[in-house]
Amino acid sequence: MSDAKLKKDLIDGTLYDPQKRPRFNEIASFMRAPVAESLDGVDIGLIGVPFDGGTSFKPGARLGPRGIRQQSCLMRTRNHSSGIAPFEICNIFDLGDVYLEKMYNIEDAHRCIEHYYREICARNIMPLTVGGDHSITYPIFKSLAKDGPIGMVHIDAHTDTWDSLYGSKFFHGAPFRRAVEDGLLDPRRTIQIGIRGSEHSGTPNYSLECGMRVIFIDEFDELGVDGVLQEVRRVVGDGKTYVSFDVDGLDPAFAPGTGTPESGGISMREALRLIKGLRGLNLIGGDVVEVAPDLDPSGMTALNAATLMFEMLCVLADARANR
Amino acid sequence: MSDAKLKKDLIDGTLYDPQKRPRFNEIASFMRAPVAESLDGVDIGLIGVPFDGGTSFKPGARLGPRGIRQQSCLMRTRNHSSGIAPFEICNIFDLGDVYLEKMYNIEDAHRCIEHYYREICARNIMPLTVGGDHSITYPIFKSLAKDGPIGMVHIDAHTDTWDSLYGSKFFHGAPFRRAVEDGLLDPRRTIQIGIRGSEHSGTPNYSLECGMRVIFIDEFDELGVDGVLQEVRRVVGDGKTYVSFDVDGLDPAFAPGTGTPESGGISMREALRLIKGLRGLNLIGGDVVEVAPDLDPSGMTALNAATLMFEMLCVLADARANR
Amino acid sequence: MSDAKLKKDLIDGTLYDPQKRPRFNEIASFMRAPVAESLDGVDIGLIGVPFDGGTSFKPGARLGPRGIRQQSCLMRTRNHSSGIAPFEICNIFDLGDVYLEKMYNIEDAHRCIEHYYREICARNIMPLTVGGDHSITYPIFKSLAKDGPIGMVHIDAHTDTWDSLYGSKFFHGAPFRRAVEDGLLDPRRTIQIGIRGSEHSGTPNYSLECGMRVIFIDEFDELGVDGVLQEVRRVVGDGKTYVSFDVDGLDPAFAPGTGTPESGGISMREALRLIKGLRGLNLIGGDVVEVAPDLDPSGMTALNAATLMFEMLCVLADARANR
Amino acid sequence: MSDAKLKKDLIDGTLYDPQKRPRFNEIASFMRAPVAESLDGVDIGLIGVPFDGGTSFKPGARLGPRGIRQQSCLMRTRNHSSGIAPFEICNIFDLGDVYLEKMYNIEDAHRCIEHYYREICARNIMPLTVGGDHSITYPIFKSLAKDGPIGMVHIDAHTDTWDSLYGSKFFHGAPFRRAVEDGLLDPRRTIQIGIRGSEHSGTPNYSLECGMRVIFIDEFDELGVDGVLQEVRRVVGDGKTYVSFDVDGLDPAFAPGTGTPESGGISMREALRLIKGLRGLNLIGGDVVEVAPDLDPSGMTALNAATLMFEMLCVLADARANR
Amino acid sequence: MSDAKLKKDLIDGTLYDPQKRPRFNEIASFMRAPVAESLDGVDIGLIGVPFDGGTSFKPGARLGPRGIRQQSCLMRTRNHSSGIAPFEICNIFDLGDVYLEKMYNIEDAHRCIEHYYREICARNIMPLTVGGDHSITYPIFKSLAKDGPIGMVHIDAHTDTWDSLYGSKFFHGAPFRRAVEDGLLDPRRTIQIGIRGSEHSGTPNYSLECGMRVIFIDEFDELGVDGVLQEVRRVVGDGKTYVSFDVDGLDPAFAPGTGTPESGGISMREALRLIKGLRGLNLIGGDVVEVAPDLDPSGMTALNAATLMFEMLCVLADARANR
Amino acid sequence: MSDAKLKKDLIDGTLYDPQKRPRFNEIASFMRAPVAESLDGVDIGLIGVPFDGGTSFKPGARLGPRGIRQQSCLMRTRNHSSGIAPFEICNIFDLGDVYLEKMYNIEDAHRCIEHYYREICARNIMPLTVGGDHSITYPIFKSLAKDGPIGMVHIDAHTDTWDSLYGSKFFHGAPFRRAVEDGLLDPRRTIQIGIRGSEHSGTPNYSLECGMRVIFIDEFDELGVDGVLQEVRRVVGDGKTYVSFDVDGLDPAFAPGTGTPESGGISMREALRLIKGLRGLNLIGGDVVEVAPDLDPSGMTALNAATLMFEMLCVLADARANR
Repeated sequence: MSDAKLKKDLIDGTLYDPQKRPRFNEIASFMRAPVAESLDGVDIGLIGVPFDGGTSFKPGARLGPRGIRQQSCLMRTRNHSSGIAPFEICNIFDLGDVYLEKMYNIEDAHRCIEHYYREICARNIMPLTVGGDHSITYPIFKSLAKDGPIGMVHIDAHTDTWDSLYGSKFFHGAPFRRAVEDGLLDPRRTIQIGIRGSEHSGTPNYSLECGMRVIFIDEFDELGVDGVLQEVRRVVGDGKTYVSFDVDGLDPAFAPGTGTPESGGISMREALRLIKGLRGLNLIGGDVVEVAPDLDPSGMTALNAATLMFEMLCVLADARANR
Repeated sequence: MSDAKLKKDLIDGTLYDPQKRPRFNEIASFMRAPVAESLDGVDIGLIGVPFDGGTSFKPGARLGPRGIRQQSCLMRTRNHSSGIAPFEICNIFDLGDVYLEKMYNIEDAHRCIEHYYREICARNIMPLTVGGDHSITYPIFKSLAKDGPIGMVHIDAHTDTWDSLYGSKFFHGAPFRRAVEDGLLDPRRTIQIGIRGSEHSGTPNYSLECGMRVIFIDEFDELGVDGVLQEVRRVVGDGKTYVSFDVDGLDPAFAPGTGTPESGGISMREALRLIKGLRGLNLIGGDVVEVAPDLDPSGMTALNAATLMFEMLCVLADARANR
Repeated sequence: MSDAKLKKDLIDGTLYDPQKRPRFNEIASFMRAPVAESLDGVDIGLIGVPFDGGTSFKPGARLGPRGIRQQSCLMRTRNHSSGIAPFEICNIFDLGDVYLEKMYNIEDAHRCIEHYYREICARNIMPLTVGGDHSITYPIFKSLAKDGPIGMVHIDAHTDTWDSLYGSKFFHGAPFRRAVEDGLLDPRRTIQIGIRGSEHSGTPNYSLECGMRVIFIDEFDELGVDGVLQEVRRVVGDGKTYVSFDVDGLDPAFAPGTGTPESGGISMREALRLIKGLRGLNLIGGDVVEVAPDLDPSGMTALNAATLMFEMLCVLADARANR
Repeated sequence: MSDAKLKKDLIDGTLYDPQKRPRFNEIASFMRAPVAESLDGVDIGLIGVPFDGGTSFKPGARLGPRGIRQQSCLMRTRNHSSGIAPFEICNIFDLGDVYLEKMYNIEDAHRCIEHYYREICARNIMPLTVGGDHSITYPIFKSLAKDGPIGMVHIDAHTDTWDSLYGSKFFHGAPFRRAVEDGLLDPRRTIQIGIRGSEHSGTPNYSLECGMRVIFIDEFDELGVDGVLQEVRRVVGDGKTYVSFDVDGLDPAFAPGTGTPESGGISMREALRLIKGLRGLNLIGGDVVEVAPDLDPSGMTALNAATLMFEMLCVLADARANR
Repeated sequence: MSDAKLKKDLIDGTLYDPQKRPRFNEIASFMRAPVAESLDGVDIGLIGVPFDGGTSFKPGARLGPRGIRQQSCLMRTRNHSSGIAPFEICNIFDLGDVYLEKMYNIEDAHRCIEHYYREICARNIMPLTVGGDHSITYPIFKSLAKDGPIGMVHIDAHTDTWDSLYGSKFFHGAPFRRAVEDGLLDPRRTIQIGIRGSEHSGTPNYSLECGMRVIFIDEFDELGVDGVLQEVRRVVGDGKTYVSFDVDGLDPAFAPGTGTPESGGISMREALRLIKGLRGLNLIGGDVVEVAPDLDPSGMTALNAATLMFEMLCVLADARANR
Repeated sequence: MSDAKLKKDLIDGTLYDPQKRPRFNEIASFMRAPVAESLDGVDIGLIGVPFDGGTSFKPGARLGPRGIRQQSCLMRTRNHSSGIAPFEICNIFDLGDVYLEKMYNIEDAHRCIEHYYREICARNIMPLTVGGDHSITYPIFKSLAKDGPIGMVHIDAHTDTWDSLYGSKFFHGAPFRRAVEDGLLDPRRTIQIGIRGSEHSGTPNYSLECGMRVIFIDEFDELGVDGVLQEVRRVVGDGKTYVSFDVDGLDPAFAPGTGTPESGGISMREALRLIKGLRGLNLIGGDVVEVAPDLDPSGMTALNAATLMFEMLCVLADARANR
């Protein structure tokens, strides 16, 4: 990875190019990107947040960064459809994983994440994060939205705007309620796509109440991807916008390796077209969360997550380069 | 489950509500429904029939009730799309499994099932059954259709109207032929949806011959879910109607855990819309069959079956409450 | 389960006996034991503690109680070797799972566990617990050792007497250090069996320092099971003794489904002989912990854990009946 | 299989018909076809080529013929949709596997394959091949296209017209470039369907350059299956045409068991309609390649491949019978 | 397989020798043995009995012959330890599977098996059978022991001498009680090895009552393999003796793919030494049963079963050749 | 990994110590060792050789280095039994993977390996290699034994001294025959341990013929680990000695993820004691080969291989430090 010089001088006699190596070779970084040795000059940082202490059913998303690093070696460097070649237009590095000094208490862990992203934002690095469970997006927002509430394109089976569960206001079903309450997320510039599944009787839907645009799977069926993208553009406009993709937004056939799967979700073809369609928005970062690799030994969930991550990297890099 | 009082008095000091517990908690009943302590006052009974002695290829559906009980803890209590909250409008209990005193001879086993459902019908309980293989629907019909032939919405890869196989007229490919022959099922009020796969050369199609409406997968593609639902309403009308969902009606990508999978089936999104569209029919019961959990360690097949079961419960409860 | 009367009166006309039912039938309780409807008259309680918030590597042990309930249907009622028939000499019930009102902070969760076991101990019920991760044994001890420090037979790959990790003194590597510090566990009456694996350089071994008898796997090889049992009797004597079995004490070939496996452990044959050999000790409770069923789709780990649990139940019931 | 006489005379007293046997019975041949004892009178040969020495990522396709033989017992004898009954209109046999005398050098292995197919073509047998990796199609073409370049319908995630990799011009990403260069394949009569995934920056697309019609997945979405089939007919016309289906053309949800999966592919329903739509073309052979059964323990990939193979057999048999 | 001539004449120009082919090649027969085209001249027949209708817990053993045929390609032709080369001293063929004309009623199925083995015995072919569940050994004995009761070396976790279960006297837990009752099996010349697991309270042990020698796993531990073999020789003497190996006699670590696993069993090293030690007995046949391949996607259970089968073939061939 | 400075300066403000991080964190290197940035000062190099082009049955060992890097994060830094802390007594780095410029021809690939190790040896770095299939040891020897034939402790199911297969003298069953023929390996100072499995009839055993000491599994049973170690010391003496561990030397219960498993092998406890017992020999390098992670989704094979690798590292480091 980072040993270009070593390989050049001593072993190969040629410049080390991971893309020319067999894909099953070498130490696995995100999309075979170089591992950063310094934060200087980094445009986009690929960051793992291996925390799943906010899970409500099956845990395991702490191993998401590892699993996605493995599968993402299948990514190449240019998007065949949009033509974007992110590594050519931005300096992109794997920044490793956030260090969670305190892991056993969710609020402590969130503080570690917030602290880390404060450094990232201070250096003007655009973050593309791999979870971990969805609770991590809240501390990321605490650092990212320091100049006022941001907009969001949110693909998920769940709204993640519940209140508290099992004694905590901080868990993977509540990050966006906390974010609205804290003035980090602008609900009127937030669109949630693919929501479905049974509900708790008697629970009002906070997303609708606070003004988010919610596209349940039924409406998704009616609108189609193009119709959904029109709504996306109408809702988020040209303000700063974050993209958050919970892999349980996909149907379990495409993402069995996740902790709270919901039947009847969107397909990978739809998902890729959705993300591709975000090109031109004022994007400031994104994440792919809730991949629990041990729940899917086939590796398909992590492969799909890595592909979503690459598609997201393309539109993020395009946004960053055209800033 | 049934220990509400125990928990209230001695341990928690609060009323026990399984929906408030973590979903990985406690003994698994169907959708965390209470386990019946009496049949009095039961409107809808959730019943397991752990029998797979009628299987023609891979067995294992005897473990279907177990597997679906496990995965069904992911169900909550209200349908986000239709707004139906079945547990609020009906008394719904897990009645446990049919006891198969004689298991090694398919005709003996069928007699046990028939006997059990006679008690259920005598108490006016609407049954929602989890198989087991599809042969079990025939003895259920023997008790359920005691007042004359019923109609059926049947989703499956196979017509299950073959004649005999390997020396028996009673196996999972023949229940609906037996039911027509016995005057339990009205073929003109029967619609079969999603039929596909290769056939035995030279075998006439009994379903077509006896007047059933068969929507092969090719026609399904043309009609779309809405068109199929129009046909459903036209065929079954307002007479008594049963719903039978064989999970091999789904494409193997959504239901790998079944004994006779057929490539090229319907997706979960289509399946959920199909069942949702049955609201308003004169429904008298239903089943989800052919889940073999050990053939799908990911649990996806059982999760999808549990979700289909919940969707079916919603339209059944609506029918029952509006009877 | 608890519906004996229901089944007797309305369906079968005969007394319901789960042991006479096919083992794949009905709702899964621990070893098909009846689910308690009251704590009155319970001699031994089978209790699930679905908590894995103290895990340091792969989580998933929160699903241990579920998984072991499933596999434990393979247990029958009498030990073929010792002849002990626990259900005949004690009243044994499945008490369900401890309700963790607060799950996202390990110290809150531990308080819930401690509170629950206080009730159990107050009723003089001997607990046989299924974890969850090993951190749960500490709050159990807080209720169980209220009359002074107890002894312990501890089978494990790890000593679990580390100090703190990732910002917490409460995690699955530290319960027995906390227990010694709090005067709940008598280190001189504690024996740890099967310890192995690489260590952190420079870390002193607290177990040895505080006077526990540690049988590393090398010495286990030399002594053999009989020699180890001699040491067990010498160390714990006739004082109150708890048995704690972490399934990672087994070699990964026998227990792949656990979060921190260590190569080169004991076999199931050795493990069963070890537990069988505890007959006659002054046993007051026990646990089997660290089963993460999703890490082992074959079900073997949970089956082995259920078998260890049955073997433990036999010696516990013998102790209880002969108290 | 071939032991019809044995079974008739000595055991059953009745003619042996594999289709009447349980599908889990007997030695597995492709679709329970008889195993050839002579090449005389064979119209269509089902042939395995167990070679994966041309793989660039995960190997295992050498076990494809074995895996597909197992799963293909689920095929019956008549296509329910087209009505084609291939075994009634052609003499179809399982010819076993190509013997690769030299396996460790890809060029030697290719020579063995070429030699084998020379014999097949000399006997006017239409080959339906099961790979193996996609590199095998090149030596097949060397024998099959001996009278001039042929056309091709190619379904795949990748164009397989790269140049060389890891020191060889012969690997599974290059067969069709080699075939064009050698005058075996007519690029203007070649259509590639389902192409997608990220690319290497700076690599020109040889397929487009040499005049092939490439339908990327985006255009596939727009055209739909019927639109694609129109293009197929326009491009290949009525000249000799080969069909090559790489299972990674399917979305990984339908084919997890392959060495270089690409997210966002076509579904089995689309794939089956595509092949069905080839009826009437001047077809001379086909293959299904890149099934690596050990990467998909569920067997779904091999089942889907077997179903694609049956669908292909129907259109090939129709072409052969109507020649 | 049987196509030696085909391959010689038309394709390879050389004699076909499956042992020289790659092991992943060709259609899978037992140990790559030739498939019989006639029963004339067969000394030992390798026979599949794909029936699991006598199973009491998880089914799937009907797929045992298929699974073992696949894995047995790893066998070569000479026993490295004993030097026996069975294919050189006997004519050994794969005879395919018993055809179960009637499969859905266990007694009908057993009649098919009995009928088949009557033909085998009439031709003086020594049978080496692959199950299927253990109930199949009873109908085999009905044909094999036609000249008086035989002896047996039986390796298993269970005695299989229960009486009736779930309404039938014919299931996989009762074959040897039925065999003793019918005068087919001499209990005083029967030794059962590896018996373990919990029992039903109050059930007397029929094996002990009727005079069989039962070596429970505890005694196995004490005697060691050599001591057990002494007992074997003492018990069976020089009369006709059958060997029956139920793979659940192995510890689940070595055979996870079986329907009623019991923890704490014998290892493969012990098992192989046990069978090797039977050389010199008057052996007349044997079986390996209860392999359910779908319960073990790793293939290890079938591989171990194939290896046990090869070891058994060696001692059977030695007995046959020295008759 | 290599970003200690980055993390220290910019993010954490503390020195980066991978051992203090959660084990599921960060990019996976062998045993969390630092990734080399230069070969200067390296004492022991941990090297991956991702080549499986010499496999004779199931491929997949090319992914061994990846899989073992993942699982080896479970290693800590000191051997609890011997007390050796390898990272304290030697400079140990992960050197990445050998770059196989030419991968599709086994002889070309071997030349790349030989070239790489020539550089390693020239710098006096002791190599600890992770395969890859066993064919890779031959080119390693070509560089390592440049000063005369070396001795070897070889643990394996197979002798790997066959001649040629499928047209090549270079495959994973022949490396040590080639090495003896080339004067790289001294057969009289070579001991092979754990050999077993069926053989090809009529093949003489080259190992025995050329004077190697072969301990078949039967003799292993008799001698026990201590007896075997005595033989090891007698055979290899104090000359330069290499250790080669093929994971198929382990029983498949401990190593299901390998391409040519053989039933009845050694256990992990025995294996660890064997390697531990090599302390004090004149060791010059070692390897662990034939791990195919995709054949074992549980990860156990790679975990056991990583543990064997750590045990080997301890004795190698001890030898290196005491040179």
